[in-house]
Amino acid sequence: MYELGGQVIGFSDAGSSSASKGESVSDTVQVISCYADIIAMRHPKEGAPMVASMKASIPVINAGDGGHNHPTQTLADLCTIRREMGRLDNLTVGFCGDLKFGRMVHSLISALSRHTGIKFVLISPDELRVPSYIRDEVLAHSAAAYVETDSLEAAMPELDILYMTRVQRERFFNEADYIRLKDSYILTPDKLTAAKQNMAILHPLPRVNEITVAIDEDPRACYFKQVRNGKYMRMALILMLLGIERPAKEA
Amino acid sequence: MYELGGQVIGFSDAGSSSASKGESVSDTVQVISCYADIIAMRHPKEGAPMVASMKASIPVINAGDGGHNHPTQTLADLCTIRREMGRLDNLTVGFCGDLKFGRMVHSLISALSRHTGIKFVLISPDELRVPSYIRDEVLAHSAAAYVETDSLEAAMPELDILYMTRVQRERFFNEADYIRLKDSYILTPDKLTAAKQNMAILHPLPRVNEITVAIDEDPRACYFKQVRNGKYMRMALILMLLGIERPAKEA
Amino acid sequence: MYELGGQVIGFSDAGSSSASKGESVSDTVQVISCYADIIAMRHPKEGAPMVASMKASIPVINAGDGGHNHPTQTLADLCTIRREMGRLDNLTVGFCGDLKFGRMVHSLISALSRHTGIKFVLISPDELRVPSYIRDEVLAHSAAAYVETDSLEAAMPELDILYMTRVQRERFFNEADYIRLKDSYILTPDKLTAAKQNMAILHPLPRVNEITVAIDEDPRACYFKQVRNGKYMRMALILMLLGIERPAKEA
Repeated sequence: MYELGGQVIGFSDAGSSSASKGESVSDTVQVISCYADIIAMRHPKEGAPMVASMKASIPVINAGDGGHNHPTQTLADLCTIRREMGRLDNLTVGFCGDLKFGRMVHSLISALSRHTGIKFVLISPDELRVPSYIRDEVLAHSAAAYVETDSLEAAMPELDILYMTRVQRERFFNEADYIRLKDSYILTPDKLTAAKQNMAILHPLPRVNEITVAIDEDPRACYFKQVRNGKYMRMALILMLLGIERPAKEA
Repeated sequence: MYELGGQVIGFSDAGSSSASKGESVSDTVQVISCYADIIAMRHPKEGAPMVASMKASIPVINAGDGGHNHPTQTLADLCTIRREMGRLDNLTVGFCGDLKFGRMVHSLISALSRHTGIKFVLISPDELRVPSYIRDEVLAHSAAAYVETDSLEAAMPELDILYMTRVQRERFFNEADYIRLKDSYILTPDKLTAAKQNMAILHPLPRVNEITVAIDEDPRACYFKQVRNGKYMRMALILMLLGIERPAKEA
Repeated sequence: MYELGGQVIGFSDAGSSSASKGESVSDTVQVISCYADIIAMRHPKEGAPMVASMKASIPVINAGDGGHNHPTQTLADLCTIRREMGRLDNLTVGFCGDLKFGRMVHSLISALSRHTGIKFVLISPDELRVPSYIRDEVLAHSAAAYVETDSLEAAMPELDILYMTRVQRERFFNEADYIRLKDSYILTPDKLTAAKQNMAILHPLPRVNEITVAIDEDPRACYFKQVRNGKYMRMALILMLLGIERPAKEA
């Protein structure tokens, strides 16, 4: 990302050393403002980047705050969808796996719901459905349609985008449910036969086993492209925040 | 600091990986001398940077060695005092809080005591007075005057500089003393009403609560400027040690 | 190493954060391929860099994989021998200390055994002799001669190269053996009196006490030169892998 010619000062250093002495986020970012030109902040507490942006004299990028949001991942996701499909509207977008705790799922739903002609297919076990605030505050106030289902196979044929996420064993109340359900949310070549030829498969990575490696060679697999797009989006974001204009760098 | 265009090789890496195998400081710096142009060394053992400077073939900056000294912080402090007050002599300098364990306090007393017309006001609970070696070896051999007191409020009106430090609960023998004393060493806007209009408030940061955030907006608060000055002093120090001359970079 | 003007992205970051979530080496290197131009990989699992090199779209340098090999150290060793002796053939090379677990010993034996006129003198306690696969697969198939001995002093006079390694207490079955043997494998000035005047002493560092510091001033001590040579070899390796040609940088 900082191949733009900049330097990275390890944030964890500043964070851990001073925070462990009881320093506030507000003080930390004021100190970092003395050293850096920009802050990319990943913080376990929701809202910390917001506080930081009010106190810092330099731009703050929210690189993930607790369970809230993950906006730079969402920019990478949007960039990938746009490059693969040529548009951000009129899409049927499936999210599959853990829709309850995946903050990138929440961020992307929120971002896509502002476009027209969007239909979400929310595929998860009952325990891992999207939180009610996503249904009540985001989806209910948008023009986007959505359905919830527990079957990836049933949903497959209509999807333009399939966004896979990890299903973690520890999210389940009991082992039996986990074993019963886990295979349903693993993407394999045979499940993919029912999919559209130009469907794009996304995954925020790292994956464990929810997409088998046999899929990697399929032209619909876009998760490594997504990483590369994430780099370009972050480079663009940094340039924009620093007020530097130059032609976009392409792969 | 290394915005001078240089690179930083994490010292903790070299330190932890090899030191954990029993490598001596002397060997470590000889190895680092092969890779780097300069060493900035923070070490828990007093005297380690001295040993390092004798063995290394490149300059060694002492960035704090145990309870001994913290010379680069002191350079930042001196730079700040000079920029704020226009001089380093004829000053009444208050140190407040933990004067026993604060190595930056000891270093700054030692540095300022070489200037004329300096008076120190050492404000601390009895348990946290400056160590006797500071009184006997540093202050007794200088022209600087000093008084010791436990009252920040009584000392306030005469101070040109107020250097605040953290008072840590674990330094106290008993909880009752801590609770009785801690509020006396917290700087609040009402305590500041008795201070000179051009007094400069310094703090090595990170702070916990010994300076309330309401003070941050006061023009006398210099602790974030101090961070910035620290960056400039370290840049100047590096340039000097590398034998590079160029016009000083100003804020 | 990256004083070539490049940047280093901490591998341990990528490794630890994602690997702890169960990411495979294969996925990790595919992700890193999106960010970096080259991968230098130190991995606890034997063969991991091999897997990585097959999956990465960028060059992978094996910087040590488990107990297997340590090829970049071996390049540093070869470079040092060549610079000190003017040749890589017709040498009597002693390895002293822990020849069982030292992967740099195994790598260097393997590399040197391809040259003509090489004789290895393998000096170790019985518990720490070279593994049988080195004798059976490497030495038996080469033209190199070798002898095994437990006496450094007896071997000293004939050596052109003395490669010292650490003897770790925990490698021994019992404390008595360790105490009885450890002094035999510590290089001291008096043991060195029997050595050739132009013998080169190498050590992969860090050392603990197996070479006394009094040796450091002896012109035969090459271990700090070896570090510097290691830097040059790695720079050369990176330039070669990136396809950049330019005159070799010399000390």
